[in-house]
Amino acid sequence: MSETMMTDDLRQILLSADSDSLHKLISNEHPADIAALLPDFSSAEIGTLLVMMPLAVRADVIGYFSIDQQAEIVLTLDQDILIELIREMPNDERADLFNQLPLEKQQQLLTSMRKAERDDIFKLASYSEDKVGSIMTSDYAVVDAKMTATQGIAFLRKTGADKETIYQAFVVDSGRRLIGTVSLRELIMADPEEKISAFMTTDPVSIHADEPQEEAARLISRYDLLALPVINGGDKLVGIVTYDDAMDVAEEEATEDIHKSATVGKLDTSLRAASPMSLYRSRVSWLVVLVFANIFTGASIAYFEETIATHLALLFFMPLLVASAGNAGSQSATLMVRGLATGDVSGKDWLQLLGKEVLVAGALGLTMAFAVMAVGVLRAGVDIAVVVALTMIIVVLVGSLIGLGLPFLLEKFGCDPATASTPLITTIADVCGVLIYFGIASWYLREAIQVVV
Amino acid sequence: MSETMMTDDLRQILLSADSDSLHKLISNEHPADIAALLPDFSSAEIGTLLVMMPLAVRADVIGYFSIDQQAEIVLTLDQDILIELIREMPNDERADLFNQLPLEKQQQLLTSMRKAERDDIFKLASYSEDKVGSIMTSDYAVVDAKMTATQGIAFLRKTGADKETIYQAFVVDSGRRLIGTVSLRELIMADPEEKISAFMTTDPVSIHADEPQEEAARLISRYDLLALPVINGGDKLVGIVTYDDAMDVAEEEATEDIHKSATVGKLDTSLRAASPMSLYRSRVSWLVVLVFANIFTGASIAYFEETIATHLALLFFMPLLVASAGNAGSQSATLMVRGLATGDVSGKDWLQLLGKEVLVAGALGLTMAFAVMAVGVLRAGVDIAVVVALTMIIVVLVGSLIGLGLPFLLEKFGCDPATASTPLITTIADVCGVLIYFGIASWYLREAIQVVV
Repeated sequence: MSETMMTDDLRQILLSADSDSLHKLISNEHPADIAALLPDFSSAEIGTLLVMMPLAVRADVIGYFSIDQQAEIVLTLDQDILIELIREMPNDERADLFNQLPLEKQQQLLTSMRKAERDDIFKLASYSEDKVGSIMTSDYAVVDAKMTATQGIAFLRKTGADKETIYQAFVVDSGRRLIGTVSLRELIMADPEEKISAFMTTDPVSIHADEPQEEAARLISRYDLLALPVINGGDKLVGIVTYDDAMDVAEEEATEDIHKSATVGKLDTSLRAASPMSLYRSRVSWLVVLVFANIFTGASIAYFEETIATHLALLFFMPLLVASAGNAGSQSATLMVRGLATGDVSGKDWLQLLGKEVLVAGALGLTMAFAVMAVGVLRAGVDIAVVVALTMIIVVLVGSLIGLGLPFLLEKFGCDPATASTPLITTIADVCGVLIYFGIASWYLREAIQVVV
Repeated sequence: MSETMMTDDLRQILLSADSDSLHKLISNEHPADIAALLPDFSSAEIGTLLVMMPLAVRADVIGYFSIDQQAEIVLTLDQDILIELIREMPNDERADLFNQLPLEKQQQLLTSMRKAERDDIFKLASYSEDKVGSIMTSDYAVVDAKMTATQGIAFLRKTGADKETIYQAFVVDSGRRLIGTVSLRELIMADPEEKISAFMTTDPVSIHADEPQEEAARLISRYDLLALPVINGGDKLVGIVTYDDAMDVAEEEATEDIHKSATVGKLDTSLRAASPMSLYRSRVSWLVVLVFANIFTGASIAYFEETIATHLALLFFMPLLVASAGNAGSQSATLMVRGLATGDVSGKDWLQLLGKEVLVAGALGLTMAFAVMAVGVLRAGVDIAVVVALTMIIVVLVGSLIGLGLPFLLEKFGCDPATASTPLITTIADVCGVLIYFGIASWYLREAIQVVV
């Protein structure tokens, strides 16, 4: 059925409060697809539709909305329905939603919960939102090292119902310190009577709850893990991060880096859902900073007013030269920033990359000088064409080297190398481009004129 | 142990051909970490070290090199060792490596293989490299719908050793058409005597082998799948794509998009390993195209030569205004391109986004006009300050709207919206900025002078 048809059906169901039709309509749909049908409905309407769904489906579907929307939707629900829903949600999502609710609502909820539930929410809600702790879940499976493979499988069958995954189980000692991990595959393939201690992976890859969340995504991707154990306070196992959450984090991080490189700040929600005010705020500060940075370019032009006044033809080539420096610089910067983000290059590769960049940028500059030379001769004569071609080689080289160096420099000073990379490079390349161009022009054209005289 | 120390140890081992020390050194290391120690060694040295490792480790480690490097390394190995290695590799990686070898070597290998192995390689190697078929593996687990849960688990135990994953098993009919899927978790949690047909997921999410590989990554991420079944030729199950391969694809795609938006073409290998020639080729074409595009900006300036000659002070503000249009435009374009790539926005959201953009860009333009007004008055008097402020509002608005529109337009014409987005926007914004600025200046300053006269 098409999406539009289903949305129409949902409107009809909403009007008639016909939950049987709703069950039939969504029975074969994935929760992600159900959530995708709902963005055009109001929060109250979504709330009403959710209440008409079976509890398990409801708890799945709500997880596919942004955290802002989730809060808006659940605030339209009755208290007892909300508690039921919160109880059913995976506990990492539950803690995120809890964090987003108004203080008063949080207190109402806490009084209706069992102590264990309260403690779990407090623990997960206490991590700041870019740390591993905030994306982990405490619904992980444990087994005992002394169990046999068969006993381990039986134990997972008994305890596994509400675990996030049973494909990776963790072995802890009496102090809840992580001592090993075993996969369900290993349990199934092992000799049934063999003890888990004999074949578990000791010293498994793990991460601290206070590390940045993208580090968890990086480890999961590097070691092809299904679940990464999270430790805190003296090696105690406190949770796991699963591969599907890691995929979401990796996508968010890529989006953030891409936005950052174009001076767009962090958006709390999707572009479609973002308010004009939040978009304004995410964009304005760097734009204003760059306005003032660009005054240097203006000042550089003003400095050469005399040369320009005598050779107005020079102006024709200025945008082209300045833009070429910026474009070549953006290319290098983009290559470096992404290379640093994926771990493909690191600080120690700087010198090797520099050598290669000089070669590449030199060749690019020569090619572009050749391309512009013909235009120069046709438009403004040989003298200016020489100046333009010479400038092109130098500015492409200078722009590329700035593009290569700036991300490393930003990283050295503890900033994200992606910060404003493209416009910053362009601005710096603009100033350099103007100074180099009119500098060469003043010198060469004076020489040329003297020769003629 | 530190990486440098381990690299030194490896050099020592290489000299003494001491495979016992090697086994001890790498026994607790993940294959990804072993591969990460080796990039400073030559292909022949890496080959020698690999041969000293146990076969299973060898087949894992080689998979962590880029496909170019894999080919270089295996070409240093003896024929029988190479065949042993190729047999042990996961069959998707084996097919990729096979594709990369010289024709002569391919033929040598084929004659030493069993028919089933040959057929499998041919099948996987026949898909072009950006299609789902090229990242799938044919090592998937199947179960029969008529088995009970217990029988299913026993069957997976018996057949699972060389499967890529046993956590998701697939149910096919006699024509190998995919009719359902069941997870190992469902098998474990089910009533042991229940038939798989009773609880398997019918009509599972699947993908065609000829679809683009990023679509597989998108489906796996959207539905939190462990393995996505791949079908071909009349719904026949031909392979699966696993979540870890999907993570790699998503990262590669993000890198490609980021590079593309800064006019860097596709690199076959990592930035660190790329040759100067391949870097030059990936960068040169757009740079030259943009040189010629920027001639329009030069021509626009030339068109207003008279106005500029009488009001040279105008030049001071030109870079600032033109850059602001480009920066605001890059911001909008970046937001749109990433939104389209992640599926956050789509073509039909165009109008809603346009309305929001007019609001946001208007506010940004006003803020920036305010910022530049003071500088304008101080530097060049009230008249020029008015021209500059007015221009700022208009160019930021125009730049932003171009930034918003171009990605949609590119998509409409079947191009990737990321194509050259930033420099293209900047170049178009440059031309518009110059025309608007000097247009307003010619008109306003003439008016102003007339009023004074």
